Amino acid sequence: MFVTFEGIEGTGKSTQIKKVREYLESKGRDVFLTLEPGGSRVGRELRKMLLHVDNRDITPITELFLYLADRAQHVAQVIRPELDAGKVVLCDRFADSTIVYQGYGRGLDTKTLRELNEVAVDGLWPDLTIVLDIDPEIGLKRAMLRNIEDGKAKEEGRFEAEHISFHNKIREGYLTWAAFNKDRMRVVNADNSPEQVFERIKEILDERLAAIA
Amino acid sequence: MFVTFEGIEGTGKSTQIKKVREYLESKGRDVFLTLEPGGSRVGRELRKMLLHVDNRDITPITELFLYLADRAQHVAQVIRPELDAGKVVLCDRFADSTIVYQGYGRGLDTKTLRELNEVAVDGLWPDLTIVLDIDPEIGLKRAMLRNIEDGKAKEEGRFEAEHISFHNKIREGYLTWAAFNKDRMRVVNADNSPEQVFERIKEILDERLAAIA
Repeated sequence: MFVTFEGIEGTGKSTQIKKVREYLESKGRDVFLTLEPGGSRVGRELRKMLLHVDNRDITPITELFLYLADRAQHVAQVIRPELDAGKVVLCDRFADSTIVYQGYGRGLDTKTLRELNEVAVDGLWPDLTIVLDIDPEIGLKRAMLRNIEDGKAKEEGRFEAEHISFHNKIREGYLTWAAFNKDRMRVVNADNSPEQVFERIKEILDERLAAIA
Repeated sequence: MFVTFEGIEGTGKSTQIKKVREYLESKGRDVFLTLEPGGSRVGRELRKMLLHVDNRDITPITELFLYLADRAQHVAQVIRPELDAGKVVLCDRFADSTIVYQGYGRGLDTKTLRELNEVAVDGLWPDLTIVLDIDPEIGLKRAMLRNIEDGKAKEEGRFEAEHISFHNKIREGYLTWAAFNKDRMRVVNADNSPEQVFERIKEILDERLAAIA
């Protein structure tokens, strides 16, 4: 089973992914955790490039192709082999991020983006996508606090540095895109305690696991 | 005017590009020289990644997206601004390399590649493309000798390290693709002295300059 997690910065994705991992492991599943960008060796170099605040001269189309390169390598070298080995793969961001950030966010044509994603994922779509939803004002405050605590505010700040209106577009993009893909995507309210958010995710997971089994 | 130069390794592209530059400057033209991959700041990082022999685990699709990222950035940040400033831009490799190497070479669908190239070049196609043609046995021998002289045989050897049959496919790919694009692409026999090769290129250039003027 391949599960992806989506949402703007500060929704608590990392926290929830860890909880999902523990939960699935407690049920005897073998779990593999990964992320985009940066899930493969080559991808980690691309991640540095994409998230570095010095690279603001990267055009939207260049950015798009770099994310697609990262994804193609990640699918071929990491995700598919782990799934083939029988693991549950949990991925922090995947193809939907491209549709939402480059499409709804940067204004690129979403139909073209879907076709490009098809080339990159090479037939491998998630069985389930959890979209964590929060008001960007709250999410960004969380993300900035976390970055300052981690001492990485300067290095990985390219997206956080965007104006609030960009993040509002991203949030709306996720909600719109999830409505088009109800079979696979589930929106979860992230403006609750981590425990409450996880309870909702657990319900969705149990339902999906039962459907697959 | 935007002129690109194509061909397998060892055809003498760099030598001919320098001669073309001198020739055009002697006619009072302002010339800008560039190359792919690596024509922009971000592109230079991608070039290192693409040509490094350690990166043989890069899949054909990842490789494709990295070349497209390099091209999108190059067009937007370098080629278009230089053309807008009234210069003649000479580029060592461009969109045709993707069709030939990733399509005829790696077996990716050439129709898809054309569509992806359209996204990357954003409407900017060359006015003229010179394809330098040579038997790969001769070309690779030249390229290897040059790399050893430059002391870069270990670093930039990913394509030279391919088997000769790959380079034969590339050569045939160039000839096929040029036949489909006769209005823009001209094949020049590169198995001659640099002076003889340049004489032929000069004829083609003069003809094209007269047509544009």
